[in-house]
Amino acid sequence: MKKWIPAASGLLAGFTAATLFFGDFSQSVKTERQSAHAKTNAEKVYVPFGEKDEYYLFASGGHSGQMFIYGVPSMRHIRTVPVFSQDSATGYGWDDHSKKMLGDYTWGDLHHPAFSETNGDYDGKYMFATDVGNSRAAVMNLETFTVRDIINVPNTSGPHCAAFVTENTEYMFLPTRFAVPIGSEYAELDDYSEKYRGVMSAVTFDEKKEKLNISYQVALPPWSFDLSDAGKKISKDWAVMTTYNTEEATTNLEINASQADRDYIVLFNWRELEKMVKEGKYDTVTGQKMIFPEKHKGGIYLVPVAKSPHGVDVTPDGKYFIASGKLAPAMTVFSFEKAFKAIENKDFKGERNGLPVLNYDSVMEREVNPENALGPLHTQFDDKGMAYTTMFISSEIVKWDPNTGETLDRVPVQYSPGHSVAAEGDTVAPDGKYIIALNKIAKDSYLSVGPSHPESMQLIDLSGKKMEVIQSAPVNPEPHYAQMIKADKIKTISVYPKDEKNKDAVYKQEDTKIVRKGNEVHVYGIAMRSKFIFDAKAKRPDQIEVSEGDKVVIHLTNIDFDQDITHGFAINSYDMNIEVQPGQTSTISFTADKAGTFPLYCTNFCSALHQEMTGYFLVKPKQ
Amino acid sequence: MKKWIPAASGLLAGFTAATLFFGDFSQSVKTERQSAHAKTNAEKVYVPFGEKDEYYLFASGGHSGQMFIYGVPSMRHIRTVPVFSQDSATGYGWDDHSKKMLGDYTWGDLHHPAFSETNGDYDGKYMFATDVGNSRAAVMNLETFTVRDIINVPNTSGPHCAAFVTENTEYMFLPTRFAVPIGSEYAELDDYSEKYRGVMSAVTFDEKKEKLNISYQVALPPWSFDLSDAGKKISKDWAVMTTYNTEEATTNLEINASQADRDYIVLFNWRELEKMVKEGKYDTVTGQKMIFPEKHKGGIYLVPVAKSPHGVDVTPDGKYFIASGKLAPAMTVFSFEKAFKAIENKDFKGERNGLPVLNYDSVMEREVNPENALGPLHTQFDDKGMAYTTMFISSEIVKWDPNTGETLDRVPVQYSPGHSVAAEGDTVAPDGKYIIALNKIAKDSYLSVGPSHPESMQLIDLSGKKMEVIQSAPVNPEPHYAQMIKADKIKTISVYPKDEKNKDAVYKQEDTKIVRKGNEVHVYGIAMRSKFIFDAKAKRPDQIEVSEGDKVVIHLTNIDFDQDITHGFAINSYDMNIEVQPGQTSTISFTADKAGTFPLYCTNFCSALHQEMTGYFLVKPKQ
Repeated sequence: MKKWIPAASGLLAGFTAATLFFGDFSQSVKTERQSAHAKTNAEKVYVPFGEKDEYYLFASGGHSGQMFIYGVPSMRHIRTVPVFSQDSATGYGWDDHSKKMLGDYTWGDLHHPAFSETNGDYDGKYMFATDVGNSRAAVMNLETFTVRDIINVPNTSGPHCAAFVTENTEYMFLPTRFAVPIGSEYAELDDYSEKYRGVMSAVTFDEKKEKLNISYQVALPPWSFDLSDAGKKISKDWAVMTTYNTEEATTNLEINASQADRDYIVLFNWRELEKMVKEGKYDTVTGQKMIFPEKHKGGIYLVPVAKSPHGVDVTPDGKYFIASGKLAPAMTVFSFEKAFKAIENKDFKGERNGLPVLNYDSVMEREVNPENALGPLHTQFDDKGMAYTTMFISSEIVKWDPNTGETLDRVPVQYSPGHSVAAEGDTVAPDGKYIIALNKIAKDSYLSVGPSHPESMQLIDLSGKKMEVIQSAPVNPEPHYAQMIKADKIKTISVYPKDEKNKDAVYKQEDTKIVRKGNEVHVYGIAMRSKFIFDAKAKRPDQIEVSEGDKVVIHLTNIDFDQDITHGFAINSYDMNIEVQPGQTSTISFTADKAGTFPLYCTNFCSALHQEMTGYFLVKPKQ
Repeated sequence: MKKWIPAASGLLAGFTAATLFFGDFSQSVKTERQSAHAKTNAEKVYVPFGEKDEYYLFASGGHSGQMFIYGVPSMRHIRTVPVFSQDSATGYGWDDHSKKMLGDYTWGDLHHPAFSETNGDYDGKYMFATDVGNSRAAVMNLETFTVRDIINVPNTSGPHCAAFVTENTEYMFLPTRFAVPIGSEYAELDDYSEKYRGVMSAVTFDEKKEKLNISYQVALPPWSFDLSDAGKKISKDWAVMTTYNTEEATTNLEINASQADRDYIVLFNWRELEKMVKEGKYDTVTGQKMIFPEKHKGGIYLVPVAKSPHGVDVTPDGKYFIASGKLAPAMTVFSFEKAFKAIENKDFKGERNGLPVLNYDSVMEREVNPENALGPLHTQFDDKGMAYTTMFISSEIVKWDPNTGETLDRVPVQYSPGHSVAAEGDTVAPDGKYIIALNKIAKDSYLSVGPSHPESMQLIDLSGKKMEVIQSAPVNPEPHYAQMIKADKIKTISVYPKDEKNKDAVYKQEDTKIVRKGNEVHVYGIAMRSKFIFDAKAKRPDQIEVSEGDKVVIHLTNIDFDQDITHGFAINSYDMNIEVQPGQTSTISFTADKAGTFPLYCTNFCSALHQEMTGYFLVKPKQ
């Protein structure tokens, strides 16, 4: 095909007004190219003003505790939504509601995000996530992109292996990465195998109340549970999770947890576990219903797998689960149907820690070992059912056919991908258009920001014959997984509706008031362009005066029912900032423990007179 | 020129293998187009893997308390660097050093970032910033992109009008947005004009010690000081700042601070103020040297300006300062030379609050009023000395000539720009290639993330005949200003050098140890791929056992002297996470107030065996 180039160049040389010619000709070629030909990578990822991205990417923020929202294909970072960590940009962790949700914690380690699902498809209503650092789970409402509930998960330590939801969001399962003594009591590590347990929690979500709830827990062996996935279609009542350290080592896991040739995939039927709970087959531990499988048999099985597997992923058709072993060169495809048959036939190879072990050969469909592909971690899928596995060590994504094991394509990524995420990749019907590699090492990829580098996400176009990396986007620490949803599935609101039942809300200036009860001061105020009104009848409606030591409760309502008119509220030197979005009422409670004169002001630019949106908080010293 | 299109199309139609032809021809055209012709906007902002952005953008994070680092022209968000707020992603606010720097505060409101300068040019060594929320200043080292010092600025409230540094970083000036009684004592607002003062602090930076220091303060009238700029070249010993609320209103500033037709620009000579301090012409207030201009005359002058000005910007040649009034339609160009002459001739119009007022007509060079341009806020400059002013209300950037007042070009932005930032725009030699509009309103620009929208930055290409918006980038709340520096000026390190003098650091495994002194436990540990070693001689080197109530001090050194190998350290349920970058030693101190068994782990993905990089923190219950 190269022969065309000189021919074309020769043609062009015939024109004397070459510059002018190029000027317009390139325009006309461009127009035709855009319709008839492949776009350049630059054009593929460019979203001109007036158009919008096609997908939302929700990337876990890891130890930042937050969720990062990106647009795809532009890979622009749209917003950081606070989940487990404080965020003064939105006042998250300062206003009473979020402060209470965060409880005793100021940060979290947000691992795997999971959209709510209906019939195995993302429904765009909620996003769930877990905190490995402080053992919590959270739910975010996607009308407002705000967290509605956080629960502590007792008896567990590090729910890394979550959250993945079942086909109709009946459950999300939170198995633990760390084994601890039941109830997290003190127990010596010499007693590890006897006293320590891994725990899987089955968490439900009440959509009406927007509340998470622990339905039951299962006391598993003291192994590390790493990743999980829920079944789909024929396997919808089942879920799978990988294990490592089945050696039950208690130190230097780098070496000691990689001794055995095989670890296990835990295969469980949550309908059966649910039934066991209904039948009372559990013990109560720290207020939780906990199934001890050694006492109450059934519903949980072990499938031997190559040592130290990391990811386990169910194919969109629900027929297979694919485990990837970071220390093994192979992906292993297991068949749910074969597993069901083996369970029915009690085709067991004995027990381990009270759990029946299936025969590897009875469940294994095929082992897939692309040449020189090293460190397979996670697998995603496209609209044709093809699999895409990240190779941490050989730094690439390998496309392969789970039905044949054939390697179809490979693309290098920079560098060391952990997870990858495909468009609608965890649903029963992936979109197949894009996959994003979540790379752990970014050295030399971007402008340096010192010894601590950003992570790197690379967008890969799946629409051509060959996979192609078309954009690289740096990202704050540290996405461990992400999900990508079609943009039109998410329906946000732009203004909070009036809530006449909310007794803290004030919508009319004349209803503002400051109520004093002993040493408590309750303020019912308004934020509006471009002033605060705490008591419309006072000489200075934008002043709050209290006495040193008073307990102060400020309710603030933003009565600008206009899109994008958010107000902030901070008191200088009082270490606080809250936000009121359009129509929203927020409350902040604190003690006036410093006497003096403290300006208060709107922290979120709201109008040309934003700078004038100020007042004073006066704290009269104790006599 | 359009006539060329049909001619070209006719030519192309002569080829039968049109598809193939386009395939390669477009390539050859593209190559030639790239050299000879305008790139598409997509191509202008696309930075392919292997190449790097040309500029760093440091955008203030406003009430997020952080600094956002972007690459230009790609407008990719590279990193969030924590400054005034906690950031668990980097352990900032948890390790002893950063915790001490943050002091009593958990958040800040980061306003104007300013690079250190040498001879009026950004030198790429340090970045300064102020905290409006809790009245602090900070300095960031650009070898490591970490904050090295934070100081509280006593006697002041809300140093909004900062930081802008002088030509050789002799000073940065921090004037306050809010007036408070001297020492922030309690005083009734009825006594505002008598007891309240604005305060300007002159802050110096000791590069060797990496310490900020308040050199002196000036007690100004109780007005709001809004923005400032340092002089350049002929005006290098001077600085300017805008004021509003010279009405000294104490409530409803939206109306009451906009009564007078004129406010002032404060023009001061910092060499003279420095001299006054040397001569002992100050009072001591809360340990600070404070000049009271009503007592010690000289060095400070007022220039009348159209009401409620916001920005004031010194031209690159240092000859003019340009004030923009958000409530006035005009930009006013003032001449430093004229001001110097008027001061020399004592051409004053009387005094205001003890400060001499210059005659407007004696200092004003010209008023510039582009047709229908409303809400001028801030002005930046290009390499030709042309000015670019953001128009908040008419949502555009206007290019104009400060020497003639002529309007040269206008470009709409979406929407309501506050500041803008040009490439090297605050130096004596701006680059002139790009300007970025920092827009306050982003509605409909990006995928919606609920009622709280991102802000929006728009990159404008200045290289063509007409300004052109070529990229739009969403950004977290909330950039109030930014500076853009040529990428090659910043020289980062990738690994912290060994520091044999640091008695907390341990570089050899055999030197790790746990030292117990009464109820104190001091751990000298190592983080390395892929394990923690707290005491190499112990049965379990990755275990720390203490008793309930012990004070625990953990020193942790990352001995992986390799680029991009950062380790984290968290103890489950103990609400802590710190980071050790390659070669770095961090310390965290806390009380073991919860008895039980708590897994500890590396939070920052570091190798294929990162998951195995764990251990246990055991807290023996009190008897």
